[in-house]
Amino acid sequence: MRATVMYGIHDVRVETVPDARLIEPTDALVRVTRACICGSDLWPYNSMTPTETGNRMGHEFVGVVEAVGSAVRTVKKGNLVVAPFAWSDGTCEFCRQGLQTSCLHGGWWGGTELDGGQGEAVRVPHADGTLVVLPVGPDHALMPSLLTLSDVMGTGHHAALAAKVGPGKIAAIVGDGAVGLCAVIAARRLGAERIIMLGRHADRIALARTFGATEIVSERGEAAIERVRELTGGLGAHSVLECVGHGEAMRTAVSIARPGGAVGRVGVPQEPTIPNAQPSFYGNITIAGGPAPVRAYIEELLPDVLEGRIEPGRVFDRVTDIDGVPDGYRAMNEREAIKVMIEF
Amino acid sequence: MRATVMYGIHDVRVETVPDARLIEPTDALVRVTRACICGSDLWPYNSMTPTETGNRMGHEFVGVVEAVGSAVRTVKKGNLVVAPFAWSDGTCEFCRQGLQTSCLHGGWWGGTELDGGQGEAVRVPHADGTLVVLPVGPDHALMPSLLTLSDVMGTGHHAALAAKVGPGKIAAIVGDGAVGLCAVIAARRLGAERIIMLGRHADRIALARTFGATEIVSERGEAAIERVRELTGGLGAHSVLECVGHGEAMRTAVSIARPGGAVGRVGVPQEPTIPNAQPSFYGNITIAGGPAPVRAYIEELLPDVLEGRIEPGRVFDRVTDIDGVPDGYRAMNEREAIKVMIEF
Repeated sequence: MRATVMYGIHDVRVETVPDARLIEPTDALVRVTRACICGSDLWPYNSMTPTETGNRMGHEFVGVVEAVGSAVRTVKKGNLVVAPFAWSDGTCEFCRQGLQTSCLHGGWWGGTELDGGQGEAVRVPHADGTLVVLPVGPDHALMPSLLTLSDVMGTGHHAALAAKVGPGKIAAIVGDGAVGLCAVIAARRLGAERIIMLGRHADRIALARTFGATEIVSERGEAAIERVRELTGGLGAHSVLECVGHGEAMRTAVSIARPGGAVGRVGVPQEPTIPNAQPSFYGNITIAGGPAPVRAYIEELLPDVLEGRIEPGRVFDRVTDIDGVPDGYRAMNEREAIKVMIEF
Repeated sequence: MRATVMYGIHDVRVETVPDARLIEPTDALVRVTRACICGSDLWPYNSMTPTETGNRMGHEFVGVVEAVGSAVRTVKKGNLVVAPFAWSDGTCEFCRQGLQTSCLHGGWWGGTELDGGQGEAVRVPHADGTLVVLPVGPDHALMPSLLTLSDVMGTGHHAALAAKVGPGKIAAIVGDGAVGLCAVIAARRLGAERIIMLGRHADRIALARTFGATEIVSERGEAAIERVRELTGGLGAHSVLECVGHGEAMRTAVSIARPGGAVGRVGVPQEPTIPNAQPSFYGNITIAGGPAPVRAYIEELLPDVLEGRIEPGRVFDRVTDIDGVPDGYRAMNEREAIKVMIEF
């Protein structure tokens, strides 16, 4: 089969790899119908130490179950399924709490041991715990939005929950990538009174406005912090959704949170420490978040997608087949595209 | 009047200073009857840049109101009052939320502009917002425990709330100082199923056990982390109460929290960043806390003190008059005393 493999900085190739196949009795074999490239895929794209073996890529996909192991009970051949960006057994202490990203027997797609979503097929471990069956066919018009349930929409929702968004609150979103845009949807969905988007790209700002952003702050650094303070009567936002991951974004996030507020961080941290330890302490600002347990959120968000109340699939502004994946990475890296969907 | 002034590292003096007096109509003048030395006073004691003017010290005190300004309504001459470690107007947006440490018109005791608690009298700004009247006389047997409501007991309670202590949960306390010991009381009071105290001093451990600690971890560094993991089935504690403030303590705190758990930090951070940004992210560990809004907690904790259900005053293991304050600093700094009470 063909799949995406990353070998080093800006070195993404589509290659023939061994066919995905069932190994464990709890596995499912899924033929991928849609997948996408994630903002977090750009971190290794810009920093990976070169390897001979390469890393299989992709952690967001929808597909059709082609076969299941003897122990799989809830997922059946022929089902259309969405996979969260982490696989999990669904039964351990953390899965039962709805924190499937910390599953004691779970893990992450791709790398050197497992298939990734940016390929024609995937062996899915713990299929019953991991996969969610979609009640539609693989070519449904809502497929782009359904695909976002594998990561970005659930990640935006997680940022909003971690930042304690709620009715009457002012939310601020740091990062105008696909996650930040989904965070706008999530903040509006949870009832934020105002949603301030920090961003500079015209296309992204326009989309943020249609998703519910009420104010846009296009300044950078200290000027952006000042502007948010001005907009919030000098106090800052109640809820800050940090959707980037580098230190400067986190510094901004803490700086624009009001005393007693919360920063929900979902951008993968690129630095070993969290900045502004003292201002966040003196302001009693909570820092929460992490990898979103999207498996827990799919059921909650699915009706809103199916009934058209939210349209996170609009973050996809480019579609490619598998051969176009390397150029998709380039386009996202150069901010030519917000998020690239792959059709198989 | 006489008051405590710090001039530099290990340079604490008791001096004659200008008498405290009413200035604003919202002020009260309080004659201090009991005060104490705080673990946080030891940070400047070990690091202060020498000054000519010195800093007035002390932020924990109980006293008798001697006079009030013309705008003071709820506090009256003759009342015995306890002062929180931050003064606040009681009416601003943050005070109304119960976050008086972020009062828009509040501040901190001592320094170069205000009186401190380690002196014979204090001008109390915003007396109605700041002070809480105690329903007992100044020589009541429970006075040591009542004095802890000005800081340590409320701070331990804040750590427990920020760390989301509750029934069925395992709490771990980092720091066996007076705040850590009060954190044990708070964790037990909020229903923690197990309370693991990280500490090494025999007297403090003994007190922690009487307060409700169920397990003691006396190892240091990595060995302490390993030991807590062993005691928690490899998972870590649900709630970690960080009662120290230096980077190593915070590193330990994050390392012993289980996925989905919370670190409540009340030790004043001595470093500009929070360590372990990535492990806390991947584990979805919440970092919360800051200066405790003890003003909000006094009413809640007072009945438990008056009815003897909690005895935080037992953290005072040395009593002095004002002349003994410099030696009290030395004794606390050398871990000879847990916490020193000053009687006037």
